[in-house]
This record gives sequence, structure tokens and C-alpha cells, in this order.
Amino acid sequence: MQPVHSIRVGLLGCGHVGSALVDLVRHQRRTVGARLGLDIEITRVAVRSIAKERAVELEAGVLTTDARSVTVDPDIDVVVELIGGIEPARELVLSALAEGKPVVTGNKELLANHGAELYAAAADAGVDLGFEAAVAGGIPLIRPLRESLVGEPVTRVMGIVNGTTNYILSQMTESGVDYASALAEAQSLGYAERDPTADVEGFDAAAKAAVIATIAFGVDVVAGDVYHEGIADITSTDIDFAHRLGYVVKLLAIVERRGEAVAVRVHPTMLPMAHPLASVRDSFNAVFIEGDAVGELMLYGRGAGGPPTASATFGDLLDAARNLVDGTSRAVGSFERAQIVPIDDLESDFYLNVDVTDRPGVLAEVAGVLGAHGVSIGSMEQIGLGERARIIFITHRASERALQATLRDLRQLDSVGQINGVLRVIGDD
Amino acid sequence: MQPVHSIRVGLLGCGHVGSALVDLVRHQRRTVGARLGLDIEITRVAVRSIAKERAVELEAGVLTTDARSVTVDPDIDVVVELIGGIEPARELVLSALAEGKPVVTGNKELLANHGAELYAAAADAGVDLGFEAAVAGGIPLIRPLRESLVGEPVTRVMGIVNGTTNYILSQMTESGVDYASALAEAQSLGYAERDPTADVEGFDAAAKAAVIATIAFGVDVVAGDVYHEGIADITSTDIDFAHRLGYVVKLLAIVERRGEAVAVRVHPTMLPMAHPLASVRDSFNAVFIEGDAVGELMLYGRGAGGPPTASATFGDLLDAARNLVDGTSRAVGSFERAQIVPIDDLESDFYLNVDVTDRPGVLAEVAGVLGAHGVSIGSMEQIGLGERARIIFITHRASERALQATLRDLRQLDSVGQINGVLRVIGDD
Repeated sequence: MQPVHSIRVGLLGCGHVGSALVDLVRHQRRTVGARLGLDIEITRVAVRSIAKERAVELEAGVLTTDARSVTVDPDIDVVVELIGGIEPARELVLSALAEGKPVVTGNKELLANHGAELYAAAADAGVDLGFEAAVAGGIPLIRPLRESLVGEPVTRVMGIVNGTTNYILSQMTESGVDYASALAEAQSLGYAERDPTADVEGFDAAAKAAVIATIAFGVDVVAGDVYHEGIADITSTDIDFAHRLGYVVKLLAIVERRGEAVAVRVHPTMLPMAHPLASVRDSFNAVFIEGDAVGELMLYGRGAGGPPTASATFGDLLDAARNLVDGTSRAVGSFERAQIVPIDDLESDFYLNVDVTDRPGVLAEVAGVLGAHGVSIGSMEQIGLGERARIIFITHRASERALQATLRDLRQLDSVGQINGVLRVIGDD
Repeated sequence: MQPVHSIRVGLLGCGHVGSALVDLVRHQRRTVGARLGLDIEITRVAVRSIAKERAVELEAGVLTTDARSVTVDPDIDVVVELIGGIEPARELVLSALAEGKPVVTGNKELLANHGAELYAAAADAGVDLGFEAAVAGGIPLIRPLRESLVGEPVTRVMGIVNGTTNYILSQMTESGVDYASALAEAQSLGYAERDPTADVEGFDAAAKAAVIATIAFGVDVVAGDVYHEGIADITSTDIDFAHRLGYVVKLLAIVERRGEAVAVRVHPTMLPMAHPLASVRDSFNAVFIEGDAVGELMLYGRGAGGPPTASATFGDLLDAARNLVDGTSRAVGSFERAQIVPIDDLESDFYLNVDVTDRPGVLAEVAGVLGAHGVSIGSMEQIGLGERARIIFITHRASERALQATLRDLRQLDSVGQINGVLRVIGDD
């Protein structure tokens, strides 16, 4: 038997993830003691209301409403921040680091906006800052990127990193329901918030994209750097067409290295059915990594939920505890501000779904606009709808700039009604 | 700019993986210097023949045929072992560890047979032993299991960990070719060795299963503990039937926790088409991990090949270098011998494909044998083949013991000819 080191943990926030973490730490206490020589105990828990009912029982004296008293408590060895949001989480994390305590956080918003400040504070204090749970929940992603792939020439990372939108798109694809019904179902199942904006408009995925880009490429990318579009305008028609053409529609976070710069964006994407990400259904997450040496990798699992997120948090907590006992730590890195490729400069194939008046010459008119902007057509289909018709294009590779100019001019045409779907087609290359 | 620490690496073996590693280290030298403050250089390379042509150019004086001179060279900081096989690899790794040098190895055979000895030697020396490349090539698997999931209650790991057999089975499934043709094709593409025994009989996967079980469950499992069957008896008929019933056939390494004991085995498996492992095609590898907290995870990528395996090796090398600079190391663990569940005690559903004489009463006779051993039938189909017929069963859950006894008695029946396919059905639970 190895000697057992006692590690006292202060937990900030005790919602779904916090409660699941308390359970997991208790459940695994003996195993972790035997295997790692660590006796991990959560001895203080800061919450907003002590009276509130919780999924776990905590001894008297453990709970407090004064989070700062936890971060400065000399009896606390490691702080776990699961409050979310920027303040007071930021101040509390900085306080714990300043006290020389390693911190584990699942707070993507905080990292995507103040990552550089926190990484520097942890490095200055010589303690660990773990954040596996901040992106893709239970999936080991940050650690593989920080360690296994730190020397890999990573070229692109594409992720399904928002379970809510993946659930909605999967339902639209598999049950043929429209966006509103799929969203309502996701809300009734607790997969979507009452106000779903952060998920469906791509804000959540954009924050995660910023963290992924920072760690994958070693440059500081913040949430505001990430171009993002959501899924609220995706129609069943788009999904049906995608299907007939051999594609599925997924909301992807895409980060790419472009020379010295990086391109970071979140938008709905048409992905070939044979692509490994295409079969990621339901509320699962997955991250597809491409590198010059490693080739293609995919990491798949639960992106949210109490126990999976607690699992990722626990992994970081044990790592921090082992390093603390060994008197060491590993810095995240100190990153210069990234040079971001403007979205207008990016290129892809595009899917367009345009409503037009069904009269002779309209197709030529529409095709003429595309041609005028140098956007060439890969495939085209026209469907009559009585007096109106719908034209579906898949273009060849074109820049966002050319595409936006094309859309602007198309909207000027009398014969063009609504332009319903504009989707990038990715993954054929 | 951080100070740059020089790390001199001794490489043992310079075949496909070694050459790719030399390339990768050179290609990433500047990036790694800027990002990690490490100047990694491969300064000595031990090979069998100095005259042999290699994919990389090495300076005069770097090559040697005396591997031991590298492991004891005081100018060498880290040793990378890519010779393969047990001896002299074992002695060389022990020699390097005894000299206080961290070791990175991709040698599954060595670890699956002498893991405990090597882990103990590394712990005694207080240096790292990395072996990410030993299982599933470029896929980050060992590090996630050792670190991210070290506190997770892992219940089962199922892996497609042999690319050769996955290629053969994928070809049989997608092109309808028989085993012999698919094997010949794999050989012509360089995916299979001229003597394919280690791959197609499951020896390679069994060694990997032993390493996975050791790291996932924290107990010492060796290659000899792993029950294994290969794919040489799989017929196109089996694959067609599987397909019609909604399954695909994959060679899986399966390690499971059963109370205090572990079950470890490799065999062809019928897997439901909707299972994430079912869509792993071509020569790709993937490992599916189930845990009480994390739920389901899958890690997917290239299981072999020079650059992907070099990528995994490089990740370990950088980790060892960072720890060396920090004056720390992380022990793999000290594991007690595992208690192995005898294969006879394991249970699953079974697929059976039995040739019989086509006369009245035969089906009752065959079904009677199953019933006598308590093996109940889930579904059954009989196909006439002129004077003979083929009966396909899928049984309900039965023990291997009951199934083997059933097969023995079936073979005694005059009406039963060949028993062609016996496949476990897994993943419906």
C-alpha cells in the first residue's frame, strides 16, 4: 500500500454537475485511495441558497453562501468552480489561484472570454488549471489536445459541441418534424432551455470553438473572434434535400489553421453521410480532428448532463491532486492573440434554396447572377410549386464574399422570392 | 520567450514509425520550441544495418548498431523503443530505465507480457514510461484511460484494435468478397503481412486487450489471460445473414469488469448497425468505453501506419520531456494480478449457422439439443439447399459453457453436417 495523501476540495456551485461530482467522489473514494494513494474529500460547498433541496446530502457545516471564504480557506487544497457565467466566477477563480490553489472549472464562457488572463494567473501561481468539462462534457478532448497532440501539426478541428442543436437536427432528420416542433420536444425533455438562444443561435458552440482553437493552435482566440450562425432558419426542406443529395445537416464548430492565422466559425453544415461526424445522433457530441501526422481522429460521447460532466471534472481534479502531491503543475500555455481570418475570405461549396416565379427565363436570370460573381454551379434542381418554383443549387467552391454578393443581387431580382437555405457543404475534400 | 531546454533522444529502431518520428520531430522543432520551450533532437539511432536505405536522412555518427550503447549513453535524455518483439526490447527498455532515462515505447507485445515488470522499473527509477502508440496507433487512448478516466467507474471497453481484420471484414461486408479474396487484397495493399496469423487469429488484438484491461481496471492482465478467436472462419453467408438481421460483423477486443474480476476476450462479434462501432470501416480503429458516470465514449482514428503511430509516440516523448525538465514523472501504477473470469462463465446471445439433412424432424431434433442445454431460441430461419438445408439461429442469452455443450451434442447428430458460424451478438443491451 502506498501512503494516502488527503486532498480537501472546495466546490463552488452544487447544481446537476456539482451534485453528480459529490456522488462520484464518494463512490470512488476507496478505489482512488487504493489506486492513486489519494483521499479526496469535498469539505466545503458554496451555494446561493443553503435551504434549497439538493440531490446529495451534505453534512452540516459543509455548505456556505460565501464562496470567497472557500477560495481563501487555508484548509482547502483544490477549488472546483461550477457556478458558470463570468462574474463572480472569474474573481473566485483568480482568488483561488492567487492563494496557490489549483482550480478545476467547467466554465466555457469564462475561458472563452478571459482564458488568457486565467492561464497566466495559473502559470504565475505555479498551479494547475483544468477545464476538460468546459468543452464537450464527458469527452476527453482538452487533455488529448494539450498533451497527446501538443506536438501534432493539427490542421482542422470540426465539432458537434452543442447537444441541444444536435438533438433538434437529428429529430428533424429522423422524424421529419419541423424546427419548432423539434425545439419544443427538446425543451420538454430538458435538452433545451426555455430561452434557447444561447444554443440555437450558436453562442454556446462559439465559446467552445474559441477554447478549442486556443488549445489546438496555441494562440489566444476569444468568443468574439468566432463567426457564428444558428439553426433557427433550417427547414425540413433543406434537410430533405440534403438527404437526397447524400448529406446530413449538422451545426459544426470549425477551427482551421491558415498559415499563421486561424479561421474560427460555427454554422450549419451539409456533411457527407459517410463522414464520421454524420452518424453522431441524438444529443451526443463529437469532435473530429485532422492533423498532418495523425490523420483523422474522432472523439465521441456525452457533451452535457450531470454525471458525464462530473466525470470530466473528476479527471481534472485527480490530475491536479496528483500534481499537488508531487509538487508540480503543468501550465496551459501563454498564447499570443490570434490572427483571425475574416469570414469573407473563407471558401466552401454552398447549398442554396431559392423560391422563384415559375416563368421561362428565370433560371437563366438566377444562374446569370451566380456567374457574374464567379460562383459556378455544381448541381441544380428545379421543382415546380404551381405559380412558384424552387431552385436548389450546390455551387462549386466559392468565397463567402462572392456568395454574399450573389445573395444580395439575387434579392434584387423581381422573380426571386425568399432565399430559404444557405448551407456550407464541407467534408467532401 | 521562455528558456529552451535541450532534450536529446535516442531512438531504437528506424523502420516506418521511426522514420516518421524523425520527420515529425524535425518538422515540429520550431513550433515545439516556441510553444513548450523544448528543443527536441534525435541524436542517436540504433538500427540492425547501417547500410540499409531509409526514408529519412541521418547525419553521420547518428546511426549505430549497438542499441545498448544508446540506452547507457549519458548524453541521451529520453529513449524511444520502436524495435518491437520481446527481446532484446525488454532488456533495452530496462537498461534505459535503470539509467534513469524516461522511455517511450510502441511495443504492445512487450507490455502485454512484461508490463508489470516495466511499470515497476519505471516507478523505481522515478521516470516516465509512455506507451500510447502500443494500442490503437494514433488514437489518444492510453492517456485518457490513465488520466482523464482514472477515477471513472469504467465497466466495459470494446475495441476494434486491429486494422487488418477490420479492413478484411469491411471488404467482405461492402464488396461481398469471401475471406480469402479480402485477405489477398489486404496483403497486396500492405495492410496484412505475408503470414497474417498474428492479425487474423486475434493474437495482436489479444495483446492490446491485455494492455487496455490493465490500464482501464488497474489490475495486471497479460496476453495469456485473453481468450481469443480469429476471423478466418467467417463466411460471406454469416456476413449476409448478419446484415439481413440488422448487424455487422466486427472483430472486437472486449474487456469487462465483473465484480472484483475482469473478463477479457477477442472474438468476431455481431454488432447492431446503430452501434457507434458498427460504422468504423476500412482499416480504422476505434475504442468504445462505457462508464457509470461518463456514459458512452468512442475514440476513433488510425490504428497503424508510420505517421499516426509516430504522432502518438511524439506526444509521449513531449510529455516525458516536460516532466524531465520539471523534475517529475508519473507512475503507470503498480497492479496486482487480475482475477480473470473463465470464458465458460461469460454469457451472450449467439448466432449459429448449421448445415443439416433436409428431412422432416431435423429441426425438432436440433432444437431439442439446444433446449436440453437450456439454450432458448430468439429467432430461427431455415433455408433449403436441395438435399441439405441451413438453419440459422439467434439464441437468447446463454453461457459459453452451455453453448459449447450444445455444439458438442449437435455434432453427434447424424443429420447435422458442418456448423459454420458461431458468433456472439453484443451491443443490444
